[in-house]
Amino acid sequence: MKRLLAHGDILVWEKGAFTCIRNGYLGIDGDRIDYIGAEEPRGAYDETKDMTRKLLLPGLINGHTHTGMSLLRGLGSDLPLNQWLFDTIFPVEDRLTEEDLRIGMELSMLEMLSSGTTSFTDMYMSPGYTARAVLDAGMKANLCRPLQSFDPDEDPMTCRRMGEMLALFDRWNGAGEGRIKTDFSIHAEYTCTERMVRAAAEEAHKRGAGMHIHLSETASEQQKCLEKYGLTPAQWFDKLGAFDGRAYAAHGVWLTPEDRALLRDRGVVVVHCPESNLKLGSGVADVPAMTAEGLTVALGTDGAASNNNLNMMEEMHLVSLLHKGVHREPTLLSPHEVLAMATVNGARLQGRADTGVLAVGMKADVIAVDMDRPHLVPNTDPLSNLLYSAQGGDVCLTMVDGRVLYENGEFTTLDRDRILFEARKAAKRLLG
Amino acid sequence: MKRLLAHGDILVWEKGAFTCIRNGYLGIDGDRIDYIGAEEPRGAYDETKDMTRKLLLPGLINGHTHTGMSLLRGLGSDLPLNQWLFDTIFPVEDRLTEEDLRIGMELSMLEMLSSGTTSFTDMYMSPGYTARAVLDAGMKANLCRPLQSFDPDEDPMTCRRMGEMLALFDRWNGAGEGRIKTDFSIHAEYTCTERMVRAAAEEAHKRGAGMHIHLSETASEQQKCLEKYGLTPAQWFDKLGAFDGRAYAAHGVWLTPEDRALLRDRGVVVVHCPESNLKLGSGVADVPAMTAEGLTVALGTDGAASNNNLNMMEEMHLVSLLHKGVHREPTLLSPHEVLAMATVNGARLQGRADTGVLAVGMKADVIAVDMDRPHLVPNTDPLSNLLYSAQGGDVCLTMVDGRVLYENGEFTTLDRDRILFEARKAAKRLLG
Repeated sequence: MKRLLAHGDILVWEKGAFTCIRNGYLGIDGDRIDYIGAEEPRGAYDETKDMTRKLLLPGLINGHTHTGMSLLRGLGSDLPLNQWLFDTIFPVEDRLTEEDLRIGMELSMLEMLSSGTTSFTDMYMSPGYTARAVLDAGMKANLCRPLQSFDPDEDPMTCRRMGEMLALFDRWNGAGEGRIKTDFSIHAEYTCTERMVRAAAEEAHKRGAGMHIHLSETASEQQKCLEKYGLTPAQWFDKLGAFDGRAYAAHGVWLTPEDRALLRDRGVVVVHCPESNLKLGSGVADVPAMTAEGLTVALGTDGAASNNNLNMMEEMHLVSLLHKGVHREPTLLSPHEVLAMATVNGARLQGRADTGVLAVGMKADVIAVDMDRPHLVPNTDPLSNLLYSAQGGDVCLTMVDGRVLYENGEFTTLDRDRILFEARKAAKRLLG
Repeated sequence: MKRLLAHGDILVWEKGAFTCIRNGYLGIDGDRIDYIGAEEPRGAYDETKDMTRKLLLPGLINGHTHTGMSLLRGLGSDLPLNQWLFDTIFPVEDRLTEEDLRIGMELSMLEMLSSGTTSFTDMYMSPGYTARAVLDAGMKANLCRPLQSFDPDEDPMTCRRMGEMLALFDRWNGAGEGRIKTDFSIHAEYTCTERMVRAAAEEAHKRGAGMHIHLSETASEQQKCLEKYGLTPAQWFDKLGAFDGRAYAAHGVWLTPEDRALLRDRGVVVVHCPESNLKLGSGVADVPAMTAEGLTVALGTDGAASNNNLNMMEEMHLVSLLHKGVHREPTLLSPHEVLAMATVNGARLQGRADTGVLAVGMKADVIAVDMDRPHLVPNTDPLSNLLYSAQGGDVCLTMVDGRVLYENGEFTTLDRDRILFEARKAAKRLLG
């Protein structure tokens, strides 16, 4: 087990806020952090890494994405929502082969690693392929096979998707020394029967698995659910047991105050996806209310078809600005809160107790941002620079479980040129 | 005069929209574009530049900034507005020496060049120093000495700031074969007397110079002006002649529908500064209404103290998303409109008829974005990729008047290491 000592600025999480240890030391023994401090540690390290003028922080956790969609980047941009979805995205999705999904997924990992994401929560087709690719690339992911059902007579336990989900769990949960976790998933209220939700919740509960859903993304989703059931989507899911275990809900744009209280009391993590919500015209989630009321909020990019990238640095930047302006209050959502959403809260969502912060004994999921760039000078306040001025491209190192996966433009596990070549070729075939 | 031929994807502006010539040719003769087309031109070029998988577009024009403030980056982030301004920014500004302003300004140019800005509109102290630095760096800028006056008895023509403004105009207007233009400026309604505005408007008008103001940035500015004069700031400025020539107004967050009609009819360009408006909690300008009503809207970053960078790529990205979400309409502000704000409309604001678009006969103010990056693949829709997925750091070439000022991380006219060193040193002295 190699021991590595990095010397640079280090963001540590203490009492609900980040503190920067200037010119500190971060020691790694194999896959775990074994030292953090301002003084050089005693004891031998095999390798010393000079990270002067670089900011070390926990790897970013993308709480909601669809990595297999990246070949659809930019498709139907700026169309009205239904025309984008039904006339553009769905027909192409229908033509995606498993090979296309693998290429899109690898393309997504290139992008995530080069912008500081170490772990992601995915919802898409063929998660078994994704699991294999994630293991090979050295990343972490929570995967699922989203369940749908439109027929109340469909037997949840014999349908194809449930079969795939159970097989996914059996084959992959915990693989790669825990790098892969498999959760259950209901795509959304409007694509599922009560019977299917109950069955999924029970099966997840039996296995101690998480539950990944889309929730209250659009006004019409919220309204139609009320008309159909006399319940909001959050109330409906809760009634059916979907929130009985670890659960997380993407979007939450149209949650009512009662919904927010329900989710908080049930410990459901809301995954805020601001870029996607803005781009699709869904609206702006009331994140300041959520955090003030004690809800746990994580961050996600959503898929590349509606974002159009998987850049968590950009997502943090946007969250830092958006709510201050919309609520006309510059003290809302401090850099501490926003970075915690992308790290601490992401780890909680994923049910990972050993990552999300830099601390002795935690897994060495570490990224570094190069602060020696004109837009990050002077570096009077590193956290402010990170949240308000840095870009994804400023990430210069991404490490998972102590293993460097990306450094200064180079990938150690993924073949960048091959993947970009195949992605262009596949997109050309798909889109003409 | 060197002749250069670039081969890559080229964004041209035709009939109010951008078209991408795939694998096209852009010829430059000295400081001007002499060829654009899909076919390789006849005739000899001294140098050929392979820009395959790079997108060539007009240089971005930052319509409103305060480049001398960059040493204050990140200072007092997340404080309430008045505490940020009066307790943090103003005391440090008071201590800025002319040397500090020069360093901050050079730091700003490093940042702007490396994120694709070729020209900027500045409002800050010591614009004469700025003019010299801009000329040396090879950029373009519209500069001013903002006028203020709190004393109705002050004679506008004998006050220090007016003296500096007139000297600036005489010494620098048109310098560098037109790269420097000097405009007049009133800082804002709430920092100026009627007498001073009238005098400034007259002096600007005499010289055919532009007028640069802050307008309707905050709700309280709008409200207090109404109480004081029974007029909105826009009506007040108009009454005093400030809009009689070329005029541009930063922010415009709180413009009324009547204000918008007035500005449109008077040909005043509104400079939208969304990051600054969000970060300071000022609000969200109604840009969709402005563009629908025929107002010309340009884009600006504002200063690094309230943004906290000068990255026009990021500003375009934000504008592309923000209004769709706030108005819940995904078809608002297309990539065509947003890119035009940062190019075509910026050139109009600056009174420059020979830049802002790529066309034969125009000045060769050209930038290139490297599309061979994971988050820009596939490149199905280059304009969508540019606006929704690219970062400032994806800019790989910035050229002004046919001269390469930045390419692949290297600056040709500015000494990056010296400037970063001096900026750190100055910030340390200023801020302790």
